[in-house]
Amino acid sequence: MRKANKIINAAIIVIGNEILSGRTQDINVLNLSKWLNELGVKLEEVRIVEDDENAIIDAVNYLRKKFKYIFTTGGIGPTHDDITSKSIAKAFNTKYGKHKEAFKLLKNYYGHKHFSIGRKKMAMMPTKASLILNPSSGAPGFILGNVYCLPGVPSILNSMLGGLNNKIKGGKKILSRTISARTVESEIARPLKKIQNRFKSVDIGSYPFFRLGKIGVSIVIRSFNKKKIDVCYKEIVKFMKKKKINIIGKK
Amino acid sequence: MRKANKIINAAIIVIGNEILSGRTQDINVLNLSKWLNELGVKLEEVRIVEDDENAIIDAVNYLRKKFKYIFTTGGIGPTHDDITSKSIAKAFNTKYGKHKEAFKLLKNYYGHKHFSIGRKKMAMMPTKASLILNPSSGAPGFILGNVYCLPGVPSILNSMLGGLNNKIKGGKKILSRTISARTVESEIARPLKKIQNRFKSVDIGSYPFFRLGKIGVSIVIRSFNKKKIDVCYKEIVKFMKKKKINIIGKK
Repeated sequence: MRKANKIINAAIIVIGNEILSGRTQDINVLNLSKWLNELGVKLEEVRIVEDDENAIIDAVNYLRKKFKYIFTTGGIGPTHDDITSKSIAKAFNTKYGKHKEAFKLLKNYYGHKHFSIGRKKMAMMPTKASLILNPSSGAPGFILGNVYCLPGVPSILNSMLGGLNNKIKGGKKILSRTISARTVESEIARPLKKIQNRFKSVDIGSYPFFRLGKIGVSIVIRSFNKKKIDVCYKEIVKFMKKKKINIIGKK
Repeated sequence: MRKANKIINAAIIVIGNEILSGRTQDINVLNLSKWLNELGVKLEEVRIVEDDENAIIDAVNYLRKKFKYIFTTGGIGPTHDDITSKSIAKAFNTKYGKHKEAFKLLKNYYGHKHFSIGRKKMAMMPTKASLILNPSSGAPGFILGNVYCLPGVPSILNSMLGGLNNKIKGGKKILSRTISARTVESEIARPLKKIQNRFKSVDIGSYPFFRLGKIGVSIVIRSFNKKKIDVCYKEIVKFMKKKKINIIGKK
């Protein structure tokens, strides 16, 4: 799949001790991934790192050279453990300070009276960053180079994605079809491999599942090429029928 | 926290296109993290990589030198997209082939008649690996050096952790207490920072939440040292009461 088309790829850096400690279940990766798919961008790597300056800098500087888009989640709030903005500035070796536009925006949002020192901290970021507007709670995210910094609270993050749609230039959209069947992977491994070997521009994934006490396998066929997907799909259905495997879902 | 005690740390490598594509919500990281906490092992990094040999090898070889324990999830089944075992063997530059003990175990599990070619593939792994027994579906995981390879299906993975308890040597357990309050982070950022600055052996995390239409912040205090946690805890409660902040939960 990689060679046939120019892929626009992305990586996510989840910044958060709360995810690593097992306190919080991350759901931002799933949401960002679905959103990126819609835009024709393929998520190829995720790193979850601690609220630690060196860990953030290392991840940002490695990934931003390797991938077209980098998204960070978390650590842009007003408390002492929010160190993403400062770390990103260091990673880019650029000035960190009061961002004029963010300051103005936050001042308007809170009003002069309620614009506390804590809130003012949220205007501290790489000074030459451009802002990502936040329609749900005021404090903006920011873009520096190809790095897009978003908050960690899922509802706020999701509300900010709409404003980014026209800033991300995706490629061809990856399409997929799925066949679910009452079988086990070892039963279908060989015919599936044969089909995969014949269709190099298609990714065939096999995912066993256990639902309501019953086992099964979902076969997911992914490609840029709708026609190739359909041919693979037919071949898989064909061998399953031949093997008298009970197909329970197709889409 | 890092300097005061010798930390036993770990990293997880999630191997799975299905997580990156947004098809599946990962829950193994959360489960492994909680299990590691109980054993006194601190999860410090997670990488989610594609079902791609080079991606797996790079992640394994970087992380296994940096962390005490590495856990991989996914990619040890019988289908063509299960390439973890082979990739790990390559990462360690060791022989990949029929693992005698795994072969025997699988043969007994399935019985001679049902031990198909697909199932035999699950005995293919680094030949000198030691096995992680699988009480729920037969096919074992394996350990090579400090790398522990587990399956991707959460229920199967969870069933295998019990057998690993005595193979992981943890350090001191990280303890925590939490205070939840009806406030916003900017309101408490300054006093919280002051307390954090005074107690270097304690990690204070601040996590805003939105539940049932109401906002709040959870303060999590983590340390090896129960006494230090308790002192911090009291100080935080004290300043919140002084600021007339409504504390809604403590534990």
